[in-house]
Amino acid sequence: MRFSLKPQDDAFYAFFNEAADNIKRGVTILSELGDDKPDYQKISERLVDVEHDNDHLTHRLFNKINSTFVTPMDRTDMHMLAGKLDDVLDHIEAAANLVYLYGLSALPTLPREMIEQITVLEAQADLLCEYLPMLKGLNSGMQEFWVECNRLENDGDRAYRMLLVRLYSGEYETLTVMKLKEVADELEAACDSFEAVSHVVESVYVKES
Amino acid sequence: MRFSLKPQDDAFYAFFNEAADNIKRGVTILSELGDDKPDYQKISERLVDVEHDNDHLTHRLFNKINSTFVTPMDRTDMHMLAGKLDDVLDHIEAAANLVYLYGLSALPTLPREMIEQITVLEAQADLLCEYLPMLKGLNSGMQEFWVECNRLENDGDRAYRMLLVRLYSGEYETLTVMKLKEVADELEAACDSFEAVSHVVESVYVKES
Amino acid sequence: MRFSLKPQDDAFYAFFNEAADNIKRGVTILSELGDDKPDYQKISERLVDVEHDNDHLTHRLFNKINSTFVTPMDRTDMHMLAGKLDDVLDHIEAAANLVYLYGLSALPTLPREMIEQITVLEAQADLLCEYLPMLKGLNSGMQEFWVECNRLENDGDRAYRMLLVRLYSGEYETLTVMKLKEVADELEAACDSFEAVSHVVESVYVKES
Repeated sequence: MRFSLKPQDDAFYAFFNEAADNIKRGVTILSELGDDKPDYQKISERLVDVEHDNDHLTHRLFNKINSTFVTPMDRTDMHMLAGKLDDVLDHIEAAANLVYLYGLSALPTLPREMIEQITVLEAQADLLCEYLPMLKGLNSGMQEFWVECNRLENDGDRAYRMLLVRLYSGEYETLTVMKLKEVADELEAACDSFEAVSHVVESVYVKES
Repeated sequence: MRFSLKPQDDAFYAFFNEAADNIKRGVTILSELGDDKPDYQKISERLVDVEHDNDHLTHRLFNKINSTFVTPMDRTDMHMLAGKLDDVLDHIEAAANLVYLYGLSALPTLPREMIEQITVLEAQADLLCEYLPMLKGLNSGMQEFWVECNRLENDGDRAYRMLLVRLYSGEYETLTVMKLKEVADELEAACDSFEAVSHVVESVYVKES
Repeated sequence: MRFSLKPQDDAFYAFFNEAADNIKRGVTILSELGDDKPDYQKISERLVDVEHDNDHLTHRLFNKINSTFVTPMDRTDMHMLAGKLDDVLDHIEAAANLVYLYGLSALPTLPREMIEQITVLEAQADLLCEYLPMLKGLNSGMQEFWVECNRLENDGDRAYRMLLVRLYSGEYETLTVMKLKEVADELEAACDSFEAVSHVVESVYVKES
């Protein structure tokens, strides 16, 4: 099963960088939910495509892990990292799909704090695209990555809690509250998955450096 | 503390196969929720028994791991695998218990999409019973296991989302919506735990093969 | 980057014991929610302080892991353990913060079953302070730790389910039900995080002993 050797190392890092790009692409589409009169159905469909692209990427990576004799990082860590990156896109796709399925387009606009959650996700995606390429070579500048991830996750938590306060304030109908809550939970899970990515990266860094 | 040697290897695989059988037994009981006039209390009580059986099995496995010098797989992986298998039964037991505790027997029938969630769990349990015995010997046919697990998890996600759409459609009273949502969440968590099992199995396979 | 050697081993165990003390301190503050006329805002603010203290502790630990050549336990396990201990405080802080943010002080008292959840958390914190110091030397008395943790987690589950039954009984207004449910979920997550701590400790014990 295993036949390639060290020279192909770079391919593994390329996979992770491509996953980061997919996430950036997904979050950018998601952010259109904050536009004036967004096309909810289209946003959801385009995110399904991005998520499928990333599923295929992840499977190609797993096959490569299986067919490579010497891998640049621990196999289990690469598995974990690819899985967490995939989780981010799963939650983003789910959030947009629920907005569409629940017919939340009937609202004049999504709550401001929900748009703030998406703004945090955009910042997390930018951070990921900036720092994940440093994994190769274990650049010591990487340490800022998890500090910054932690800060953004706190911003995300705050937006989420403030959104809950608004949802439970009596401003919306009960069923609308429940629908918005489901979407908010997926966005919060995406935000947490970004932090899980940073934990795996940190743990790889700690082990290998 | 450690006194046995390689010859007892088979016992570890037997533990995992027994856990798969417990899950199959549990899911079969759970599926009675789709019968005409099910006895909700009995279903819940029988599932508590299955879950306790599996708790005891898990503790026997952990003791065996501690008292064996050479184990056929990495200790940590065996721990993780046993833990994820146990999670499946925990969520199944919780789902049936909540149906009973919340008095959902007052409904003429559970929503169709909830029964679909259970149908997916049955397919996952069958798949597990078919493929987990291949772990011994790292049969290369195993690779279909995680592909198929992933497919079923997507089916489960779809049933779950369609159930939410129904729950938030206004068909049910608010408190009933909340109760059904809790049950749906446990079923979805059981479905996710099956996938977590497949991830551990895949990671063991990748490492050892 | 790595310059210290074995003699500083004790510092790692001291970090974990200090985290256990922070948790004990946090849970004691949280338990004031059961007092007659508690000051919800103050409780929340004091818990934010404890959580920050523990964040700093965790970061100091991570830096120490990075700058130490020979660590007394596997680096990844220490990372995981510190992370799970931190999770406990995150959920406790979130629970108290939501009680305050949602204005639940308007209720004459929190539901009895929610106070029971907190009582379980107190017992878990006591257990942690008693057993975590045994990690050094892998004291064989530790095995009672995870048995007892499992028992308490079951108590916590029971309190949580009984609380849900009360919340969905029609006794409270819908929005109040939703708010209380959010708080209950954070308390349940804290209870689960304690069990996750015990799983990491058990896995370290299994590996190292």
